[in-house]
Amino acid sequence: MDKICRVNMSDLTVTFGDVPSAWAGLGGRGLTSTIVSAEVPPDCHPLGVNNKLVFAPGLLTGTAAASSGRLSAGAKSPLTGTIKESNAGGTAARMMARLELKALILEGLPKEKAWYSIHINKNGATIHEEHEVEGLGNFALIDVVEARFGKRVGILSIGQAGEMRMSLANISVKDPDSKIRSLGRGGLGAVLGSKRIKFISIDDEGTPLVKLADPEKFKEASKRFSKTLQDHPVTGQGLPTYGTAVLVNIINEAGGLPTRNFTYGQFDGHEKISGETIHDTIVARGGKPKHGCHPGCVIQCSQIYNDADGKYLTSGFEYETIWGIGAGCCIDDLDDVATADSVMDDIGVDSIETAVMFGVAMEAGILPFGDGKGMIRMMREEIGKGTPLGRVLGGGTANVGRIYGMTRVPVVKGQGIPAYDPRSIKGIGVTYATSPMGADHTSGYSITTNILNVGGHADPLKKEGQVALSRNLQIATAAVDSTGMCIFIAFPGLDIPDCLAALVDMINARFGIELTMDDVTNLGKTILKMERQFNIAAGFGKEHDRLPEFFSLEPISPHNVVWDFTGEELDAFWDF
Amino acid sequence: MDKICRVNMSDLTVTFGDVPSAWAGLGGRGLTSTIVSAEVPPDCHPLGVNNKLVFAPGLLTGTAAASSGRLSAGAKSPLTGTIKESNAGGTAARMMARLELKALILEGLPKEKAWYSIHINKNGATIHEEHEVEGLGNFALIDVVEARFGKRVGILSIGQAGEMRMSLANISVKDPDSKIRSLGRGGLGAVLGSKRIKFISIDDEGTPLVKLADPEKFKEASKRFSKTLQDHPVTGQGLPTYGTAVLVNIINEAGGLPTRNFTYGQFDGHEKISGETIHDTIVARGGKPKHGCHPGCVIQCSQIYNDADGKYLTSGFEYETIWGIGAGCCIDDLDDVATADSVMDDIGVDSIETAVMFGVAMEAGILPFGDGKGMIRMMREEIGKGTPLGRVLGGGTANVGRIYGMTRVPVVKGQGIPAYDPRSIKGIGVTYATSPMGADHTSGYSITTNILNVGGHADPLKKEGQVALSRNLQIATAAVDSTGMCIFIAFPGLDIPDCLAALVDMINARFGIELTMDDVTNLGKTILKMERQFNIAAGFGKEHDRLPEFFSLEPISPHNVVWDFTGEELDAFWDF
Repeated sequence: MDKICRVNMSDLTVTFGDVPSAWAGLGGRGLTSTIVSAEVPPDCHPLGVNNKLVFAPGLLTGTAAASSGRLSAGAKSPLTGTIKESNAGGTAARMMARLELKALILEGLPKEKAWYSIHINKNGATIHEEHEVEGLGNFALIDVVEARFGKRVGILSIGQAGEMRMSLANISVKDPDSKIRSLGRGGLGAVLGSKRIKFISIDDEGTPLVKLADPEKFKEASKRFSKTLQDHPVTGQGLPTYGTAVLVNIINEAGGLPTRNFTYGQFDGHEKISGETIHDTIVARGGKPKHGCHPGCVIQCSQIYNDADGKYLTSGFEYETIWGIGAGCCIDDLDDVATADSVMDDIGVDSIETAVMFGVAMEAGILPFGDGKGMIRMMREEIGKGTPLGRVLGGGTANVGRIYGMTRVPVVKGQGIPAYDPRSIKGIGVTYATSPMGADHTSGYSITTNILNVGGHADPLKKEGQVALSRNLQIATAAVDSTGMCIFIAFPGLDIPDCLAALVDMINARFGIELTMDDVTNLGKTILKMERQFNIAAGFGKEHDRLPEFFSLEPISPHNVVWDFTGEELDAFWDF
Repeated sequence: MDKICRVNMSDLTVTFGDVPSAWAGLGGRGLTSTIVSAEVPPDCHPLGVNNKLVFAPGLLTGTAAASSGRLSAGAKSPLTGTIKESNAGGTAARMMARLELKALILEGLPKEKAWYSIHINKNGATIHEEHEVEGLGNFALIDVVEARFGKRVGILSIGQAGEMRMSLANISVKDPDSKIRSLGRGGLGAVLGSKRIKFISIDDEGTPLVKLADPEKFKEASKRFSKTLQDHPVTGQGLPTYGTAVLVNIINEAGGLPTRNFTYGQFDGHEKISGETIHDTIVARGGKPKHGCHPGCVIQCSQIYNDADGKYLTSGFEYETIWGIGAGCCIDDLDDVATADSVMDDIGVDSIETAVMFGVAMEAGILPFGDGKGMIRMMREEIGKGTPLGRVLGGGTANVGRIYGMTRVPVVKGQGIPAYDPRSIKGIGVTYATSPMGADHTSGYSITTNILNVGGHADPLKKEGQVALSRNLQIATAAVDSTGMCIFIAFPGLDIPDCLAALVDMINARFGIELTMDDVTNLGKTILKMERQFNIAAGFGKEHDRLPEFFSLEPISPHNVVWDFTGEELDAFWDF
């Protein structure tokens, strides 16, 4: 019987309750956004007593459905001030599902300045005061927690950045190899830090398998679903072989790889940081080019990257990070990029926000473009230690831009713009502008259709069709983000009709219900509108659904195009 | 014949043009807000090529009308993101009026990273490249400019903070003694700095007196007007004797003196920083307890404050500064407060924003409460030199709060809340919440009626009547801010009927027109609504007309009251 667990940090109590019937059909983003909308005052301070941090596995998490192990976290974001959902792989979501924990809601603020942990197992949840973990990076913390609870324990944690309530701070999720995946965007680590929770440990020992209403039907649908993932060239070949960094050369070729803080659309050093180069380097050094971020992943776009001596350096080394630290900051030394990735995991900062922020910091003269070693030092010694400069950087892209008086500051609703230039890939620009999450590529990933010709084609340099493309993708994504599925199922989802049909069949077989595709679409619409409503009440209306002015003023090479959507054209996004 | 001067920094050209008929009846804030509304895109970057900085003397500036020498500056604010008008005394406004310069509009951004000055005299305006002034504080800069143009020259300038485009940066206006008044709020110094203009020098030599349509009628009205200023106890006795700091003991007694970053409503050290103590100290040290901030001021609320050796230390030493550095930061050493005042003038930062920011910085642990010497060092060595810590502090109150993860951050629309706690003086809270300028006491100074029983009485602890009080004051102030008059004429204006009648008569005699009191009220309404419209287009709707959450959660001593206005009650402000 699914339960809702509430941890009240104001009085240090834990309660388990039934799932309200209105929430029964929800999971992942659908559930976190519903709970935040229902219980968090939109005008509250994100780090104050009235914000809540909600974790929820997806509807299919814990089942044998391929790539269904994503965990959603939701709250009012200290980075953007909007509602926020961030999701990640790792092992915690599956454990929560097996513990029949539909959602974990963290409320209130402790009166004392102590640090706490929460331990969850089949007997319930307990709060513990912690005296030895303050100041630890995530890797050292994982060692401590595993020493206490055993190697299998699931862990959600914050590094130093989260303790210091920095807007860059993410929440780390332990992966199957005791490495780190991240609930990256929107500074949710600062919310966990504000509640003085250093980590949450989860132990699903002794729990039964997730119950299925119709195991046979589920098995059949699950098989069909997996086949579509294997059959599609992107999820079946491109991503498993080269990882997400397969995009470096593709986006560079398209002239949409934001370079030197969004000054150019192509990076001279792109070959040195491409997916192909990474693959060959990993193989040569005895790493693993294929690796799953959570149990049950069949796409395996992650990897284990070793250093020149064949020693483990990092994993979960993604396109966004490689682009942002690489092209964005003009760093073409792959080992520097990989080291930065590892340090960001350790101190617990969002690698997209951090990379975009460093692009602005470099333009502000804080360190030279291309200085990978300097950046790594600043991550460890300034951000990780909370020096004044570290606080400047830890405040994120918009913050650095503001206090250094910069005008080329690539953010929407305060969140750094990811790895695709909106001037030369216009569909993704519509997503950046209109997503309730702030600039977020995953919320409506038009690269599929703009660049990869998945789900048809829409010329990335033209405005035609981009608003509708982004709208359809954002609606579908809001629904998919509720299932626990990886965003990459969008590739077969857009091209192979049976993919989404099988997904719906799995949900129906899991719960014994009769959802149709229309129901799923309506769920996506409902989630988006609910998130939008929260944002409006928090002060984010249509005037905030805009890209920064410089995109309209500065043409980007090689296509020499500017961002040219009118406000009215963007506002039409919400006509559904 | 009045003219509009436009300086285009993009192509380094100057043009003089006629005054459009729609602008003919406007001056001061009415004119700056009209020009900004007409010509600045509300969604532009405040430090970018599309923002404009507008200077305008008031309608009566340059005449013999008492206390009419205020200069308005307007732009989109880099601190708040809203429209902004800031006004100050000094000598520049009078000189602009005598030069028949209705407005000076600075546009564009230079392509080169050089610094420039603008010199204005009866022959026109010229742009000069400057090689020796970068990095100078305002006092050294005044010496340089006076050496070049003579002692009488009017000067508008920025210190180091403006050069670095910090949100704290103000624009300094030379006063009759070569000391400094400030266009303080909203970071307008950063806008001047973004346009790479270090100073503007104004020479009105050889200009005739301002022409009056009806000199006799003007003289008669002017005499009546001056009499009301002299007859009212606040402007005739309180302010000239004790300066604005006469309020320290009064507001402390009322329990509305925000202390230790808005944690308490009374300050133990209030006697040490009171107007009475300041008066006695000034007299004992051979300073001047009465001093006018601009030629023609009869209120003379300013002063010359000497150090313990009888040497000049500072002037224009105001209640807001004394409160903010004093009670707000728990510094009860008057000489430390005076020294801080002088340093802030020199580096060119708004003393309200800086003081409120330091309150938050002290709570964040950056330096101890009460450490006046430490604060002075940080102003000079960190802010003035743009170290990383200086950049943190230079970003203003909201910025420090954000990057240190604080929740007690007293700002509205990003601007620090001045010297009256809105929980225990509720009328001023309505002004903070609703003013298009962000938290700004001068835009609707309810202290008159809440505390001083001027214009009647409205119990400061009760909600009743506060919205109407703030509305009436904001409407009247928007009009008064267009005349060039000091805000303090509100005291006789509220109590002595002939004050505003004489003011209208002076305007009519100056221009040969037939304004009524209703016309003046309508002007105020028009200005407010126009500013509000700009803000809405810039993304600031009713959700931004709110005080920070902590005012509703934390009762303030000694009255143990919270801020308890609903959103609907505040939204009623705009019902006119």
